[in-house]
Amino acid sequence: MKPVRVGICGLGTVGGGTFNVLTRNADDISRRAGRPIVIEQVAHRSIHADCDITGINATTDVFEVANNPNVDVLVELIGGYDIARELVLTAIANGKHVVTANKALIAVHGNEIFRAAHEKGVIVAFEAAVAGGIPVIKSLREGLGANRIEWVAGIINGTGNFILTHMRDEGRAFEDVLAEAQALGYAEADPTFDVEGIDAAHKLTILASIAYGVPLQFEKAFTEGISRITAEDVEQADNLGYVIKHLGISKRTDQGLELRVHPTLIPKERLLANVHGVKNAIAVMGDAVGPTLYYGAGAGAEPTASAVVADLLDVARDIATDHHYRVPYLAFSGIDEDVSQLPIMPMEEITTAYYLRLLAVDRPGVLARVATILAEQGISIEALIQKEATEGELVPIILLTHRTKERQMNAAIREIEAMADIAGPVTRIRVEALDEGE
Amino acid sequence: MKPVRVGICGLGTVGGGTFNVLTRNADDISRRAGRPIVIEQVAHRSIHADCDITGINATTDVFEVANNPNVDVLVELIGGYDIARELVLTAIANGKHVVTANKALIAVHGNEIFRAAHEKGVIVAFEAAVAGGIPVIKSLREGLGANRIEWVAGIINGTGNFILTHMRDEGRAFEDVLAEAQALGYAEADPTFDVEGIDAAHKLTILASIAYGVPLQFEKAFTEGISRITAEDVEQADNLGYVIKHLGISKRTDQGLELRVHPTLIPKERLLANVHGVKNAIAVMGDAVGPTLYYGAGAGAEPTASAVVADLLDVARDIATDHHYRVPYLAFSGIDEDVSQLPIMPMEEITTAYYLRLLAVDRPGVLARVATILAEQGISIEALIQKEATEGELVPIILLTHRTKERQMNAAIREIEAMADIAGPVTRIRVEALDEGE
Repeated sequence: MKPVRVGICGLGTVGGGTFNVLTRNADDISRRAGRPIVIEQVAHRSIHADCDITGINATTDVFEVANNPNVDVLVELIGGYDIARELVLTAIANGKHVVTANKALIAVHGNEIFRAAHEKGVIVAFEAAVAGGIPVIKSLREGLGANRIEWVAGIINGTGNFILTHMRDEGRAFEDVLAEAQALGYAEADPTFDVEGIDAAHKLTILASIAYGVPLQFEKAFTEGISRITAEDVEQADNLGYVIKHLGISKRTDQGLELRVHPTLIPKERLLANVHGVKNAIAVMGDAVGPTLYYGAGAGAEPTASAVVADLLDVARDIATDHHYRVPYLAFSGIDEDVSQLPIMPMEEITTAYYLRLLAVDRPGVLARVATILAEQGISIEALIQKEATEGELVPIILLTHRTKERQMNAAIREIEAMADIAGPVTRIRVEALDEGE
Repeated sequence: MKPVRVGICGLGTVGGGTFNVLTRNADDISRRAGRPIVIEQVAHRSIHADCDITGINATTDVFEVANNPNVDVLVELIGGYDIARELVLTAIANGKHVVTANKALIAVHGNEIFRAAHEKGVIVAFEAAVAGGIPVIKSLREGLGANRIEWVAGIINGTGNFILTHMRDEGRAFEDVLAEAQALGYAEADPTFDVEGIDAAHKLTILASIAYGVPLQFEKAFTEGISRITAEDVEQADNLGYVIKHLGISKRTDQGLELRVHPTLIPKERLLANVHGVKNAIAVMGDAVGPTLYYGAGAGAEPTASAVVADLLDVARDIATDHHYRVPYLAFSGIDEDVSQLPIMPMEEITTAYYLRLLAVDRPGVLARVATILAEQGISIEALIQKEATEGELVPIILLTHRTKERQMNAAIREIEAMADIAGPVTRIRVEALDEGE
């Protein structure tokens, strides 16, 4: 059987891992694909430490790969937006299939890229773009294809989960654990992308599109980071039976789709609450299957390579059919005609429960005033913790509310913050039950 | 686009669920498949309560479906071995694709069925045969296709997990919870199939074949049930930091493949240890991806239907390619030439750690003798709990050992049971670390 010829662009962490997995497991991969998958060319500026490319056609110009007539599939592992976009579009224009691990590229330029690919009749596969080695794209797009998806909620940024795990286990402060994560190489020198939820929003955008059959709309995702979570919040959540996780959440409601990344209190007994360190997990609720969950390594050389190579297997099988077998890019067929136009809801319209932490002067009537403000907005209180303090000193008040609209909560928080006896901003963390069933 | 015409054989729990999911989500399923999937005929003896088949071509003879020239895909949901085998082979002989939820049929007659399907060039899909709605066949066969699979370990029988969950949460005895499970409809009147591990061994056989590319060898699977687990074992395991789960485990070793179903102590912090009630979960370790886990409903009408319909989506896409796209039945291409002949190891050859519980006369020297017997077999002790008792009374001794060969453990247990100061048989439960990483 004719081999599938691959051109790998980028030999960094993921590129090196892909090179090594394709080489090491070549026999098993050929058995699974029904034909060999061979590396025709690599393009790299620096070589990954553990990667032996002796005898491989190598170049420093990625566009050479996109224009190489002997390459069937271009594997884009250079990252970033602009050059990656140009590279992928060039490969597509040349009739090549594309496999990419680039979540930012797909979340921001995916609609344009899929349209180009659709017109040329080629595959663009991106399993590695979400949650590394976990086959969640395949599970959601194919394995759960019978279902009307109700919600998706996931730990889809390992850096953030590493930080929250160590804050909880060791009672440490955010800045302290972040510094450790940076020293270990889990966090970048500028950690914004990870800790402010932008990376997670890229992945959530992709998951939501596949779950509901809607266009990619990264610009409408709400993002809130974990940098303002304190050791006290972590401890109070624990006292209340919760764990704080940085989740990407997308729900289908009668008003449209929710698309939001923020710190979230979830019940301790949830599997998601027990996903530790840099690991990822995604819970998916389908109307037929009920709750399901997918867990594994969300990053790293070989876990991500595992997903890249799984995509190459799909491409290899598609090539055997003369390109008639096609799982739609975003799960539902076609490009325009079958795309749903469910709106993404503004954040003020979403409904959830809330954890609030406020610092109050310990004076009679303060708590009554806070409760009144909440009641006036139609918000009812589920639990309340007020620590004892000396008269006149600042004392933290912790509140758990029942579900309410974000707009009501925003109004209540504005009023509470305006009270003379309340010091500083109110900390607000959303709470989700995420029932996994039993 | 030409519709795919389905004939459903059996309208019991899963058949009724499949009928309803195909009907309710018809629009979304068509969008995903790129063509409608329509129910051409149903065969049933009794109709599922919630299933409205008005206007559908119905028969009481399943073979009418297998011989109906208007049916493209036969969905076998009648269960059992003999008639199901004949039905599936008839459908294949008539050039029809087959989707089945029948784990017993695939585990026992799969090799014969796949050979017949291979010769006729049709698909036999069986996602619903393992772990209900969890897309674990697709994940293992396609999503992890880059990996050399090292081990698979799963909670793949909901009845057994329901019983163990309630034994642990409520300190109750096996028989007591079994009676409740029977009253709730989770366990059959004759519970042997579930509680003795036969059902789990069917599923494990299928998982192992897909993981390693070996023929289905159900007859070589080791099975041990949960009926001898006592409330005391559950409590002692808890004291030692473990939870008892009924697991199907298959490992690749230098000597061959392990294939075994038995009660297993696993560390409390594992996600598998936190899978409760009737839910299923499968952990898979790949050389590239590392540990992954898949969780969801392992049985029930619509969860199982979710998997049946996902298979129909794959079949629909394959039909569009004129049958050139084919994920191999057991993951690796071809039927004979690519099947690995890794042997299944006899149980005596496997290596694991052990929990032992014995009843001893509380006399000086008894413990020393037990320790000596273990030492003579090269077995070292990791932990030991001996309860206080009045001199001369029977006292339970709990031991955790380090890893050793089952043969050595069998010999040691025979010697211990022969001691005059040991009463009754030694309880032995295997212990697995199943490292999920962090």
